[in-house]
Amino acid sequence: MTDDVHRVHVALGERSYDIEVGAGRLARLGPTLASLGKATHAIVITDANVQEPYALPAAESLSAAEIDVDIISVEPGEESKSVETAAGLWNGMLELGADRQTVVVAVGGGVVGDLAGFVAATFLRGLRFFQVPTTLLAQVDSSVGGKVGVNLPEGKNMVGAFWQPIGVLIDPTVLGSLPDREYRAGLAEVVKYGVILDAEFFSFLEARTDQLNARDPNCLAEVITRCCRLKADVVEADEFERSGHRAILNYGHTFAHAFETLSGYGALLHGEAVAMGMTCAARLAERMRRVDSAFVARQTALLERLGLPVNPPKCDAEAALKVMARDKKVSHGELRFVLPSRLGAVELVGGVDPREVAAVLG
Amino acid sequence: MTDDVHRVHVALGERSYDIEVGAGRLARLGPTLASLGKATHAIVITDANVQEPYALPAAESLSAAEIDVDIISVEPGEESKSVETAAGLWNGMLELGADRQTVVVAVGGGVVGDLAGFVAATFLRGLRFFQVPTTLLAQVDSSVGGKVGVNLPEGKNMVGAFWQPIGVLIDPTVLGSLPDREYRAGLAEVVKYGVILDAEFFSFLEARTDQLNARDPNCLAEVITRCCRLKADVVEADEFERSGHRAILNYGHTFAHAFETLSGYGALLHGEAVAMGMTCAARLAERMRRVDSAFVARQTALLERLGLPVNPPKCDAEAALKVMARDKKVSHGELRFVLPSRLGAVELVGGVDPREVAAVLG
Repeated sequence: MTDDVHRVHVALGERSYDIEVGAGRLARLGPTLASLGKATHAIVITDANVQEPYALPAAESLSAAEIDVDIISVEPGEESKSVETAAGLWNGMLELGADRQTVVVAVGGGVVGDLAGFVAATFLRGLRFFQVPTTLLAQVDSSVGGKVGVNLPEGKNMVGAFWQPIGVLIDPTVLGSLPDREYRAGLAEVVKYGVILDAEFFSFLEARTDQLNARDPNCLAEVITRCCRLKADVVEADEFERSGHRAILNYGHTFAHAFETLSGYGALLHGEAVAMGMTCAARLAERMRRVDSAFVARQTALLERLGLPVNPPKCDAEAALKVMARDKKVSHGELRFVLPSRLGAVELVGGVDPREVAAVLG
Repeated sequence: MTDDVHRVHVALGERSYDIEVGAGRLARLGPTLASLGKATHAIVITDANVQEPYALPAAESLSAAEIDVDIISVEPGEESKSVETAAGLWNGMLELGADRQTVVVAVGGGVVGDLAGFVAATFLRGLRFFQVPTTLLAQVDSSVGGKVGVNLPEGKNMVGAFWQPIGVLIDPTVLGSLPDREYRAGLAEVVKYGVILDAEFFSFLEARTDQLNARDPNCLAEVITRCCRLKADVVEADEFERSGHRAILNYGHTFAHAFETLSGYGALLHGEAVAMGMTCAARLAERMRRVDSAFVARQTALLERLGLPVNPPKCDAEAALKVMARDKKVSHGELRFVLPSRLGAVELVGGVDPREVAAVLG
C-alpha cells in the first residue's frame, strides 16, 4: 500500500512543487523532505490535538533521516490563527536557533497550515515550508495555492502572504480519526470541485458515496489527488489572484460566509456552510434560468448522500444581504456570485438582483 | 530645478521599478504615483517628526492627483519597528477600509520604510508599496533592495519579507532639515559604495567634500543616484540573498554590529558604527596584506573630512569577538569578513584569525 503513491505537480515556475498522496506516506516524511535539498533542521508546527497521533511520528521520520527536529504546538482552534500566536512562534523559533536553512513543517489542519505558512513566509524574510495536512479540508483546499495568513480581530485572513510550500505530503489514513462532522465538511469542498470544474469527477463521486462514507483510504487517495490537480490548474492560471479566475473557487462561499457570520463563528463548520451555500447558489442560478431544476436536484442529492446539510439556517434575508454586500467579491456595491452554467462550469455573475438572492434564503 | 530628474531603473523582472531623484520632486508625488497605474486610495505611513514637514505636503500632492489619502503616524524611533506597531497599522488600515487597490506610501527614514513595507507586504497578502525616503541613509540604502521587516525583542530584522516597491521618489532638499549626526551617518554608507564597488566614484566624493558638507542638493542628487545605481546592480544579481553576492553590501557591518551592541543600541548611529567598522575592516585587510597602508589612509581621510568617527569605541576585544561569532555571516563558527582587495573591490574572506581581529580593535 505504501508504494501506491499519486503525485500532483504544481507548476509555478521557480516556485513549483509536488504533492504526494498515498495511504501510509506519513512514515516516509523524512526521506521525502531530505530529497528536496539540504535540510538539517526542521521545526514542526502542530496543535495539541494532532501532536501525539501525527506530529510525533512525523518528527520521528525526520529524525531517522538525520534532520534535527523541534516541535512547537499551539492551541487547537481558529483563535490560534492570530498575530499573537504568530509572534509567539517567531520568538520560539528564534530561541530554537532557526536559521535560513531551517524548514518549517506544518502538521495539522487549515489553521495550523495557514499560521505555520505565514510564520515561514516572514521569519528571516522567508524560510522553506512543507505541509502535512491532516484534515480532508486542508488536504483538498489549503495544500494547494500558497495562501497563508492570520486573522485580525475584525477580519479573517486580513494579514498574510502568497508563500508556496516546497512540497506537500498527504496521507489519507490520518482521516480515520477525524470527527464525523469535520470529515463530512471536507467532502463539501470535494463536491465543489466537481460542480465548478469537472462533470466527470462529479459522476465519479456519485458512484462512490459508499466508499467515501466509509473513509476508504484508496478511494480517498484518488479523490484527493483529483481535487489537488483541479485546484492546481486554477492556481497555475492565476497564482496571485489577479485575473479573477481564482474566484471560481469561491463557489457557494459568498452565501457560506454570511451563514457563518450570522450563526456566530464556530456554530457551523466551514464545509457545512459551503454545502448550504452551494445549494443556495444553485437555486439562485435556477431562478436566473442559468441551470435547470435537475442540476439543483443532482447537486443536492450528492451532498445529502454524503451527510451534508443543504438547507440554509433560519436567518433574516436583510441581514444576510448586508453581510454579502461587505464581501470581497462585491465591486462598487454590486452583488456578484459564482454561479453554475452547467455541471462542471461556473461564471462570476455581476448585477444580481437582491430580491432573487432573498428568495433563495427563505 | 524641478525638471532636473535623475532616474535609476531597478530591473527585477515583473518586480522592476524606477527611482526618481531630484531637488523639489516631493511636490510631484501625486502625478508620479498616478502614472504607475490605477490608484484611488493611498495610506501614507510616517512618523511624528516627519509628518508635518514632509508627509502633509506628500498627502496634498496625492490629493491634488485625485487620490484619496489617509495618514497614519507612528512614534519616531527604532522601537516602532515592532510586531506591536505593525499590528496597530494592520488594524488601522482595516478601519480605514484599505482594499487590494490601496497603495501604501512610506514617508520617512529607514524605520518607517521597513515597517510600512512589511505592513504592505502582508496586508491582504500584499498591497502595492511606494517609498519616499527622507533620510540620507534611507535614500541610499533601504530604498533599493526590497528588504522590509520588523524587529523581535531578541533580534533585529528577524521578521519580514522581500517586497519591492512600485516606485521610489527621492527629494534631496528634504535632507536640509536632518540633524547633523544623522546626515553624516548617511555619508558613511555613501563612502562604502565607492570602496566596495567603484573607485572612480570614491575619487568623485573626495573632490566634493565641501559640497557634501554644505548639503548641496544638486551634488546630493547626483551622489544619491550613483549610490542607488550601484546598489541596484548588486540587488539585480542577487535579489533574494541566495548567491552570497549581496553580502558585499555588509562591508564594515560585522564590526559595526559589534560596536552597536556593546555601546547599547542608540549610543552610536548605525552610520557612525559603519564608519568605524569600515576603518577596522581596512586595517584588518592591511594586516592580512590584502591592501597597503595608503588604502587605509585614503579611506580614513575621506571619512574624517565628512565628519565621521573612525576609531572604534573602547571595548573589550573578547566581548566584541563573541558578538561577531553570533553574526549571520559566520558559517560553522568560522569568522568571515567582507574585506577590500583594492579600492572598488571587496571579497568575503573566511577563516580570519581572531588574533588579527583583536589587534585592530585595540
